[in-house]
Amino acid sequence: MQPPSIRIYDPTLRDGQHAVRHQLGERHLAAYAAAADRAAIPVVEVGHGNGLGASSLQAGRAALTDREMLRTVRAALRNSRMAVFMLPGWGVTRDIDTAAGEGADIVRIGAHCTEANVTERYLGHVNRMGLEAQGVLLMSHMASPERLARECRRMVEFGAHAVGLFDSAGHYLPKDVSERIAAIRSEVGVPILFHAHNNLGMAVANAVAAAEAGATILDACARGFGAGAGNAQLEVLVPVLERLGYRLGIDLYALLDAAELAERDLIGANLPRIDQLSIVSGLAGVFSGFKSRVAAIAGERGLDARDIFFELGRRQVIAGQEDVIYDVADALMNGKMRRDADE
Amino acid sequence: MQPPSIRIYDPTLRDGQHAVRHQLGERHLAAYAAAADRAAIPVVEVGHGNGLGASSLQAGRAALTDREMLRTVRAALRNSRMAVFMLPGWGVTRDIDTAAGEGADIVRIGAHCTEANVTERYLGHVNRMGLEAQGVLLMSHMASPERLARECRRMVEFGAHAVGLFDSAGHYLPKDVSERIAAIRSEVGVPILFHAHNNLGMAVANAVAAAEAGATILDACARGFGAGAGNAQLEVLVPVLERLGYRLGIDLYALLDAAELAERDLIGANLPRIDQLSIVSGLAGVFSGFKSRVAAIAGERGLDARDIFFELGRRQVIAGQEDVIYDVADALMNGKMRRDADE
Repeated sequence: MQPPSIRIYDPTLRDGQHAVRHQLGERHLAAYAAAADRAAIPVVEVGHGNGLGASSLQAGRAALTDREMLRTVRAALRNSRMAVFMLPGWGVTRDIDTAAGEGADIVRIGAHCTEANVTERYLGHVNRMGLEAQGVLLMSHMASPERLARECRRMVEFGAHAVGLFDSAGHYLPKDVSERIAAIRSEVGVPILFHAHNNLGMAVANAVAAAEAGATILDACARGFGAGAGNAQLEVLVPVLERLGYRLGIDLYALLDAAELAERDLIGANLPRIDQLSIVSGLAGVFSGFKSRVAAIAGERGLDARDIFFELGRRQVIAGQEDVIYDVADALMNGKMRRDADE
Repeated sequence: MQPPSIRIYDPTLRDGQHAVRHQLGERHLAAYAAAADRAAIPVVEVGHGNGLGASSLQAGRAALTDREMLRTVRAALRNSRMAVFMLPGWGVTRDIDTAAGEGADIVRIGAHCTEANVTERYLGHVNRMGLEAQGVLLMSHMASPERLARECRRMVEFGAHAVGLFDSAGHYLPKDVSERIAAIRSEVGVPILFHAHNNLGMAVANAVAAAEAGATILDACARGFGAGAGNAQLEVLVPVLERLGYRLGIDLYALLDAAELAERDLIGANLPRIDQLSIVSGLAGVFSGFKSRVAAIAGERGLDARDIFFELGRRQVIAGQEDVIYDVADALMNGKMRRDADE
């Protein structure tokens, strides 16, 4: 049986923003979008790292407004479709209207893995506007395969044309991915997507595992440019999938050129790497966006940042619960003081 | 069934030399060897990148002699065993005697994947000296699983206590590894080893595949420090294997500390990365050590280095056949001239 076609979805200009504090400018966006288009990459996503409406003091102010980013990328694309990402709460319905007005073709709505209900209003809105609606579950390792499948089915009922999983903490090994994609596949009839992170060196292998289990939309970024340890490396994943027999329709040399351009003009010294807190956050299953705050608090109090991460993992902390870092630090300090007193 | 114990073999101080033109000094070797020993890494390999006796104008002069490297590492190790690598031709029997005299516990003899016969004399010599003899096949993707198994069996007959494969070109995907390790396992009764390269982003996944197929000695380097796109990243592979249930006996925090030390003191700006010629050489199945020469010749002649690599792959070129790069460049020039004349 011929393996199915895979649609590559490229969030370099959205997830990569996390690695440069959302400071990509018009020149960067235009140059990379044009290069991705030349390589025939089907979908180019753009935006603030946290999506539409997220530019703020708390999440970091982007160099450009959503409208400026969209307009720049739209002008640079000839054949590739343009996508945006939105987390309800950061973004609202009006932001989707803005994106549609600037020519977005795909709107992806994200929710914590057990909270698909928050996507209802937005997926329905996108669907009614005639755009492609995608629903994604974040931090997906925190729910069982069966729960993920049920949450995905709900998103399909809300109007999603495609649904799937983010491995936000980079926690999965390939068998974890296979099992979860297969569970979703048995529940929904729409295309399934997967978005990998490389904390355990498995991003490419996990994306391949997703494809083998039936996912047909795979996220990948030039040089893996993205939050924390980075994503699946686009220009590696594409020829690996082609070698396995999948049809992608992407031009290899133009793809390699786009990645070189990304490294030279966008990434520079911010090339993703797997450092020790990437590994620990991946093992612990904690969003690696906590890294700088955990490191700072550990430094202030003379604690080991790795202990904090493992304890955050035991407490199943999710993004937005950064205050728990202080509770964990207090608890570790108390434990340390008791141990010191016992000696 | 309990997964078997895995013995981690750490060639950071040998394969990493390729990334710094064999310039690691006594301070580097002593600091990393002590850190690896603290982490309870079972085996630390040291030497010139091409092994015993290889320091030369052609392969690059190392900062230290073999004897100096061995003496430095021996003094730094308390529990870890010390290993050396040798390619017959670069090294000779006397080099093995030197290594034994300086306290090497393991001598690994390498040969091109179809040429195990050249290891006979050396494996026998190591065996008779009472040291652990390992036989490894380089560029192993160029031979069939059955051929690799036969060559491994021969090395066992020559006296090897362990045998296995180098993925010198970083060409394998996990299923390729599984198939080859399984073939060897059905032919030999000694421990099987595997040494990955990360050209296709699969080094950790391939090492895991090797373990799952029955390999019990796995090579991995701090931060992946090694030739080309680097090796399996040691401090990632170890916790991934432990999560899968393998017993390794390595201290995670001390391991992470050793990798931090390696990055800070040994690797610096030479952190392995997957650039476009890493990908192309991996796809083409050509040793990535050809990279700088291919790039230089392509630059001189206005050719695309990627075309040269793919043609070298079609011609099944191996290390030592660098002159073929010129033949390929000539052929591509002729083709280009003909195309230009036709237009």
